[in-house]
Amino acid sequence: MAFKRNFNIMARPVTLLGHLVAISIAVLILVWILHFREGVAFKSDNKLKILNLHVLLMVIGLILFGGQAIMAYKSIPAKKYWRKVVHLGLHAIALAAAIFGICMSFKFHRDIQLKNLVSLHSWFGLITVCLYGLQWVVGFFAYFFPGAESRRRASLMPWHVYFGIFVFLMATCTAELGLLQSLDTWFLLGHTQENLIINFTGLLIFLYAATVVLTVILPPLY
Amino acid sequence: MAFKRNFNIMARPVTLLGHLVAISIAVLILVWILHFREGVAFKSDNKLKILNLHVLLMVIGLILFGGQAIMAYKSIPAKKYWRKVVHLGLHAIALAAAIFGICMSFKFHRDIQLKNLVSLHSWFGLITVCLYGLQWVVGFFAYFFPGAESRRRASLMPWHVYFGIFVFLMATCTAELGLLQSLDTWFLLGHTQENLIINFTGLLIFLYAATVVLTVILPPLY
Repeated sequence: MAFKRNFNIMARPVTLLGHLVAISIAVLILVWILHFREGVAFKSDNKLKILNLHVLLMVIGLILFGGQAIMAYKSIPAKKYWRKVVHLGLHAIALAAAIFGICMSFKFHRDIQLKNLVSLHSWFGLITVCLYGLQWVVGFFAYFFPGAESRRRASLMPWHVYFGIFVFLMATCTAELGLLQSLDTWFLLGHTQENLIINFTGLLIFLYAATVVLTVILPPLY
Repeated sequence: MAFKRNFNIMARPVTLLGHLVAISIAVLILVWILHFREGVAFKSDNKLKILNLHVLLMVIGLILFGGQAIMAYKSIPAKKYWRKVVHLGLHAIALAAAIFGICMSFKFHRDIQLKNLVSLHSWFGLITVCLYGLQWVVGFFAYFFPGAESRRRASLMPWHVYFGIFVFLMATCTAELGLLQSLDTWFLLGHTQENLIINFTGLLIFLYAATVVLTVILPPLY
C-alpha cells in the first residue's frame, strides 16, 4: 500500500479536525444528558441518572480520550518519550473510565432488575474493554517498562497499530449501538429534538473515529 | 507506519479466514431468516417478510460481496486486469443489492405506515449507500474506463483505499445497528436462541470487516 509515500497531506491539520469533532461530541453529549435527560449520579432514586453516568464515561472517557491517546503521536509537538507518556496516560484514563462505566451499567441493571449481557451492545462492550486492557498491558511491557528488545518491538509495532485501531473501532461501534439502544425501541422513535441529537452524535462519533485512524496512517508533520 | 515491511504474514491465508467467516455469517443469517423468522418475500401480507428481504440483501449482498470485492486483489490468483474486473463487478453486485435492499426497507415502512429515516440505523445506511455509489463511480472512471493519467491514479490510490475502507466499515456499523434494532426493544431481549444467533452474527460481521481490512494492509503472496 505504501500509504506514507503517496498521501499528499500531513497528519497535523487532521488532528486539529479531530479535536474540533471531539469538542462537538462532548457538547452534544452534555446537552443530551443535562438538558434532555436527568443528569448524572452515582447513587440516586432516579436510576436513569446512573445509566447517564455510563454514557458520559463511555463517550467522553473511552471514545474521546482513547482517540486523543491514539492521535498523541501526531498531535503533540514534543519529544518521542513525552508523546509516548501521553499516549500511555490518556489510554489509561480511557480504560479506567471504561471499566468504571461498565460497572455503572451493571449497577443500573441490578437496581432495576434487568438481566446482564443480553444485547449486542453489551457483548461488544465487554469484549472491547477486555481487549483494550490487554492491548494496554502488552503495549506497556513491550514499549515502556521494561521494554522488549529492539527487533521484537519493531516486528510487534504494525500489530500494535492494527490491533489498537481494531479495538478503537470496536469501541466506536459499541457506542453507536448504545446510542441506538438508548432510544428504547424504534417504534417509539420520532423526529424529536432528542432523536436528532442522538443521530448527529452518532455520525460525529463515526467521523471522529475515521479522523483518528487517518492521522495514524498519514505522515507526521516533522 | 510502513506496514508492508514489518508485517510478518502474507495476505493470502487471511483471505481464507475471510471466506470462512463469510460462509459462517451467510449460514447464520439464513438460519435466522428461514428458521426463526418467516422467510423472505417481495410482496406478502406478512410484511416482516419484506423486512427480511432487506436484511438478506444487506448482509449477504452489501457486506459479504462488498468484503469479497475488497479482498479480490489479494485472494484471486490471476492477472491484475482480471482482479480489477472482479473487484469492480463484485462491488457493482454489492451496490445493486444495497440499493434494492434500501427500497425494500422503504416499502416495508410504507406498508406498515412507519416514518422513514428516523433511526440512527437508517441515517447510517442511507449515507453509506450514497458514499458507496460515489466511490464506485469515481473508481470506475479513474481506474477502469477511461482511466486517469498514471500520476493522478497513483496519487488518488491511497485515498481510494482509505475511503473504500471507511465506507465498508460504515456499512459494517450500519449492519450492527440493524441487528440490534431487529430485536425491537432491549427490554424485550432475553437469552433466547434468536438473541444468541443475532449477537454471534454481529460479532462475526465485525470479525469479517477486521479480516477484510487486514488483507488490504498485508503484502500480497506474490
